[in-house]
Amino acid sequence: MKPARNRNVTVHDLGEFGLIRTLQSTIGRSETSVVVGIGDDCAVLRGNRPDSYLLYTCDPVVEGVHYRPRDPARKVGWKAMARNLSDIAAMGGLPRWAVVSIGLRRNTPVQWVKQLYTGLHAAAQRFHCQIVGGDTTHVKHEQFVVVTLIGEVEKSRLTLRSSAKIGDSVFVTGTLGGSLRGKHLTFIPRIDEARWLANHFPVHAMIDLSDGLSNDLQRLVDVSPRGTGFEIDAAEIPIARAAQGKLSAALNDGEDFELLFTIDPRHVTGLRQKWARKFRTKLTEIGRVVRSHHKVALIERDGSKTPLTPAGYDHFAKD
Amino acid sequence: MKPARNRNVTVHDLGEFGLIRTLQSTIGRSETSVVVGIGDDCAVLRGNRPDSYLLYTCDPVVEGVHYRPRDPARKVGWKAMARNLSDIAAMGGLPRWAVVSIGLRRNTPVQWVKQLYTGLHAAAQRFHCQIVGGDTTHVKHEQFVVVTLIGEVEKSRLTLRSSAKIGDSVFVTGTLGGSLRGKHLTFIPRIDEARWLANHFPVHAMIDLSDGLSNDLQRLVDVSPRGTGFEIDAAEIPIARAAQGKLSAALNDGEDFELLFTIDPRHVTGLRQKWARKFRTKLTEIGRVVRSHHKVALIERDGSKTPLTPAGYDHFAKD
Repeated sequence: MKPARNRNVTVHDLGEFGLIRTLQSTIGRSETSVVVGIGDDCAVLRGNRPDSYLLYTCDPVVEGVHYRPRDPARKVGWKAMARNLSDIAAMGGLPRWAVVSIGLRRNTPVQWVKQLYTGLHAAAQRFHCQIVGGDTTHVKHEQFVVVTLIGEVEKSRLTLRSSAKIGDSVFVTGTLGGSLRGKHLTFIPRIDEARWLANHFPVHAMIDLSDGLSNDLQRLVDVSPRGTGFEIDAAEIPIARAAQGKLSAALNDGEDFELLFTIDPRHVTGLRQKWARKFRTKLTEIGRVVRSHHKVALIERDGSKTPLTPAGYDHFAKD
Repeated sequence: MKPARNRNVTVHDLGEFGLIRTLQSTIGRSETSVVVGIGDDCAVLRGNRPDSYLLYTCDPVVEGVHYRPRDPARKVGWKAMARNLSDIAAMGGLPRWAVVSIGLRRNTPVQWVKQLYTGLHAAAQRFHCQIVGGDTTHVKHEQFVVVTLIGEVEKSRLTLRSSAKIGDSVFVTGTLGGSLRGKHLTFIPRIDEARWLANHFPVHAMIDLSDGLSNDLQRLVDVSPRGTGFEIDAAEIPIARAAQGKLSAALNDGEDFELLFTIDPRHVTGLRQKWARKFRTKLTEIGRVVRSHHKVALIERDGSKTPLTPAGYDHFAKD
């Protein structure tokens, strides 16, 4: 896509990825306290400890976009917190402190807001994270909830999007697709799994799947070293029951909040065995990191190879 | 106001203060890493340094509430960042890292978003703060910008809302009222002034004036020790030119983003002299902290005393 010189170019024309790239150049260079700025699941900051980093992330949840007006407020709160917890998980970290900004219509029942906070609090507490502040404003139309999290990660356990190595095996947790049928409001962020992985295995790259496998693989490729590609085996992709057997749903629906990670293949046998003893959550090897300029390829059941192009959710695409 | 047991009670019925009190009890007790949770300008967190705290704050800016659709995007961005910087100033701290969540309509020109970021970045950079991440979503109606800031403050310089002492003199920076005529989009957060104060004088309580002097004094009283009250001299209140001589505007308009602080009266002479040499910004002694159950009293020009009741901006009050 060409740079937006024209005053009439809208965010819809650029799309979400294009917009983020444009904003990155507006914001400029990083100072030395910033290990990773825009472009991963969290920003990674040099705090004051020699052996750990601060993680920092925020994520908006908007009525009519991320939940329906009739969804229970407790679940909306759970989701708003859990999305952010999932970003901390993807870095191998632990959440510490949350602040919450909410926009409310004036005629919203206080009971609704209490339920929202009950959900926010429940998700935070489950992972020993504390809500320490926030602010409210009124809105006329769509209500929104923006959660910001600070987390921590030991330097040795930090897992970035950009660390995939050619030859790695690619894994996903859980099953993919059909999340909008319910899971998107009730999912358990994979913090326990991510911490266990970071503690027991030298995980290379990791990301949480929020915008669909096809989109999020593209994100990994975009920050990987030149010539790094992914081959994904269509037959191996774990399709969620809610996706009713549709591969396209597993590839593109989004809001799965599962982990995708890459690891040296010599750890695969040990990983499978130890994982099975530790977790009920499914763990599936879905492909490999390869030397390729084709970015992401889908290997069909008949062995044919097709490019897997990003077709997941784009906030500024047409409905 | 009575507690909201009725399912039909709305956020409008409770008002902003009532809602915040309700939510505090939903969120529960603090763990030991939290020095100050909900109820000050920022949360204060025990980071990993023995001699300093982390500050943590977020603040939403909504189209039609905090700015008009026709306001320049650069100014909207400046305001969204500067409001948060003002909260860091009120704690005596320095800002470090920002994340930004924005909700955009799909037909918003990319140029508008770039200008928004130019404003966000300009305000951040002015105070050596860096934007390190964020997220965007689409909205159908009102656009919003939520900035979250992490700052730092030396333990010895932390200034809380709750530290007013009976006998203190009460000061405000700048002038008050009429901010909506323009200042609310272009104000300079008082970080330099607050740091200088914290470095040179033992400031007791401090707050930034965001919701009007009458509201924000009430906030100080609410967290002060029992029996602590404020007497404010009507004749001393510095009325901004934009308020056109109206005392009520200076008391209640809000969005002034000036500092209000209390200090032992024996420092008053030194403070006045040194301030005048250092800053062009006005500094005015407007009253004192007194032993009183009457909370906040306004001393009129004729010497009569009337209660100063909160009449500033309430997000959930009627328009």
